[in-house]
Amino acid sequence: MRSLPDPVQALIDNFARLPGIGPKTASRLAFFLLKAPDEVTLDLAEALENLKRQTGHCRQCFNVTLTGEDLCEICRSPNRSEAQLCVVEEPLDVQAIERTGAFQGKYHVLMGVLSPIEGIGPDQIKIAPLLERLKQGLVHEVILATNPSMEGDATALYLQQRIAPLGIKVSRLARGLPVGGDIEYADQTTLQRALSERQPMD
Amino acid sequence: MRSLPDPVQALIDNFARLPGIGPKTASRLAFFLLKAPDEVTLDLAEALENLKRQTGHCRQCFNVTLTGEDLCEICRSPNRSEAQLCVVEEPLDVQAIERTGAFQGKYHVLMGVLSPIEGIGPDQIKIAPLLERLKQGLVHEVILATNPSMEGDATALYLQQRIAPLGIKVSRLARGLPVGGDIEYADQTTLQRALSERQPMD
Repeated sequence: MRSLPDPVQALIDNFARLPGIGPKTASRLAFFLLKAPDEVTLDLAEALENLKRQTGHCRQCFNVTLTGEDLCEICRSPNRSEAQLCVVEEPLDVQAIERTGAFQGKYHVLMGVLSPIEGIGPDQIKIAPLLERLKQGLVHEVILATNPSMEGDATALYLQQRIAPLGIKVSRLARGLPVGGDIEYADQTTLQRALSERQPMD
Repeated sequence: MRSLPDPVQALIDNFARLPGIGPKTASRLAFFLLKAPDEVTLDLAEALENLKRQTGHCRQCFNVTLTGEDLCEICRSPNRSEAQLCVVEEPLDVQAIERTGAFQGKYHVLMGVLSPIEGIGPDQIKIAPLLERLKQGLVHEVILATNPSMEGDATALYLQQRIAPLGIKVSRLARGLPVGGDIEYADQTTLQRALSERQPMD
């Protein structure tokens, strides 16, 4: 196999470092850009550079914010309740919960999840700043919205043990059948949880 | 839904312009890069800029080449036969055929395919330079390796009609069952072709 020109191969290699993009997709993207108008490529390059130059993390909740802004839009908002705090793993999770429109409190982004296998302990994620924040006494309920995965559950359990002594109510997102799902195709664990956590109908 | 910081949204929009990347994948990529080490993002940005700065197209076959190089590696090679010319739609197709190691001739990249619906006629792709090249009399056989799609077939038929009067042999890639495939799952059209173009066993 004849090798590709270096700049094409370099771009393929860089695309392939992204999650969910394998070597085949990476080369399809590179060859698409070779043929596409220059601005498609150059706009993407500029957007990438701007991402690192123009964004930072909120001092209080660690959500994404613009460079130079101390607090994110949600932390600054006077319309959001200080009483409820939703703890999530990633900034992307904040977006997902915001899209529901069902939460009017504030957030705390852990920037990861406990994972002994990957060597990520409580000090590697934003747990200490969360506990500091809770000690100020404004928060009445912490909603743990970590992923329903092994790591997410372990992180939730750890947080519950650390937060309970502060006298703050701790809850977590409900487990059960996804809306629009089909019992026939639900996995065994989900169905077990849906049964054991069944809700009374009033 | 609260809007994302502009630099994040801009990157998502730019990723979503790429083929096969929808809004969800685009935002997953952007949030991955927010968290990843800076160089993952900046290396990708640089590779994108280099792609446009450092690559061009071969004057003869329109395959990808480095800026400043008049002819691509294959066109320059003294080991490749001038007698066989393989006509493909895209530079990526050259790579695919090179990987087989089964072709020792040269290539001509059309940089597209005839598509009346998208307003792409013979003048929008590299057909005129192909005919010019054939008139030099070095090529004895043209292998049409356009995609086995409606547009690819129409382009092959058009090229065959233009090339035949030059007294050059024209062939195209065989159709049939993919190797390793399963007759049970073959689509109807492929199976029809495999039947009608069945090969004698010697």
